[in-house]
Amino acid sequence: MTETTSTSADLSHLYELSPEGRRLLFTDARTGYEFSSEPVSDERLRAVYELVKWAPTSANINPMRVLYVRTPEGKERLLPCVAKPNQEQTASAPVTAVIAVDTQYPEFVPELAPSNPNFRSMLEANDELRITHGDFNANLQAGYFILAVRATGLVAGPMKGFNAEAVDKEFFDDGRWRSILLVNIGYPTEGSFRERLPRPTFEQAVRTA
Amino acid sequence: MTETTSTSADLSHLYELSPEGRRLLFTDARTGYEFSSEPVSDERLRAVYELVKWAPTSANINPMRVLYVRTPEGKERLLPCVAKPNQEQTASAPVTAVIAVDTQYPEFVPELAPSNPNFRSMLEANDELRITHGDFNANLQAGYFILAVRATGLVAGPMKGFNAEAVDKEFFDDGRWRSILLVNIGYPTEGSFRERLPRPTFEQAVRTA
Repeated sequence: MTETTSTSADLSHLYELSPEGRRLLFTDARTGYEFSSEPVSDERLRAVYELVKWAPTSANINPMRVLYVRTPEGKERLLPCVAKPNQEQTASAPVTAVIAVDTQYPEFVPELAPSNPNFRSMLEANDELRITHGDFNANLQAGYFILAVRATGLVAGPMKGFNAEAVDKEFFDDGRWRSILLVNIGYPTEGSFRERLPRPTFEQAVRTA
Repeated sequence: MTETTSTSADLSHLYELSPEGRRLLFTDARTGYEFSSEPVSDERLRAVYELVKWAPTSANINPMRVLYVRTPEGKERLLPCVAKPNQEQTASAPVTAVIAVDTQYPEFVPELAPSNPNFRSMLEANDELRITHGDFNANLQAGYFILAVRATGLVAGPMKGFNAEAVDKEFFDDGRWRSILLVNIGYPTEGSFRERLPRPTFEQAVRTA
């Protein structure tokens, strides 16, 4: 390894994931801003979850929940909650996943982490811990979710530009789930992708100690 | 698709990622709690970044930064900041990545998102937006990072059990980077893995509208 900046191409022998897999999830994958009219099947949406569920969370709490908005009625309720510049892409996507955190996730802890019998009550007695721990891990799972969508042969269009309070009021009126990210999902069409933007270099982003 | 609970095995024809890729990143991958003494090369650590950098962030802000702690001196400084139950695994890992957010990430925005010329000043004028946006996206990238470690043929051991303030004081004393997650990295050994825990079912975690 020389002192000069090397390109990622030089490193390809170091990956265990195949070139096809790297292209699919990372190097060639792109955010979708427009989708074909081809519908996404129930089974495929299930397949996304059956994959993403295996990625790790702290103490196995798995607080992420998903609402797939895909009926015309659902879309009509969702669109006013989306920032204007994101409405057209959201309307074009056959599915929009609302990624949420289950604020009452400690209820599942005895089942998910049976070796940790006091953890549920510990979380329920400490709102700050419960909330920060839930948010952090649901957020981590949102990252996994985007890659799992790609792994399932779909294009993902994640969006932070939406009114989370309005989404929660519209879809989660019992106050239990709280939305953190929207992800448009579908198949690509001619106008799906924008030009690739640069990334911070290794030298800008990484240090050693 | 029947009404009864189907297993993920039934869905394998729906994935675009190969069975090997799914096993590597999701279905067979496990959190590492102990590591072999085999060192991890500079190049391989670079390969992790050169892959993870491509996964998407809001408006391409890419706020995640990584400190690879891998020298004996670095490890000695890190260990007291790690929760007692995590110290042994951290000591055994040839590398511990400190995943951090660059709190001054707006500086890079003109370079990373040239079509959005007012975004830097918008973020710099609004601390709450700057911080929540940075934290959310660095957290998303932390999820990508764990999967990229696996894609690079390494075992990841993510840990939230550490004193973030102490890590920041020890390693980021200019106050610019703020730690959000530790990830032990290395090669597996006999005692690396624990029994697989259950996950929330599709019916518990997913709804449709």
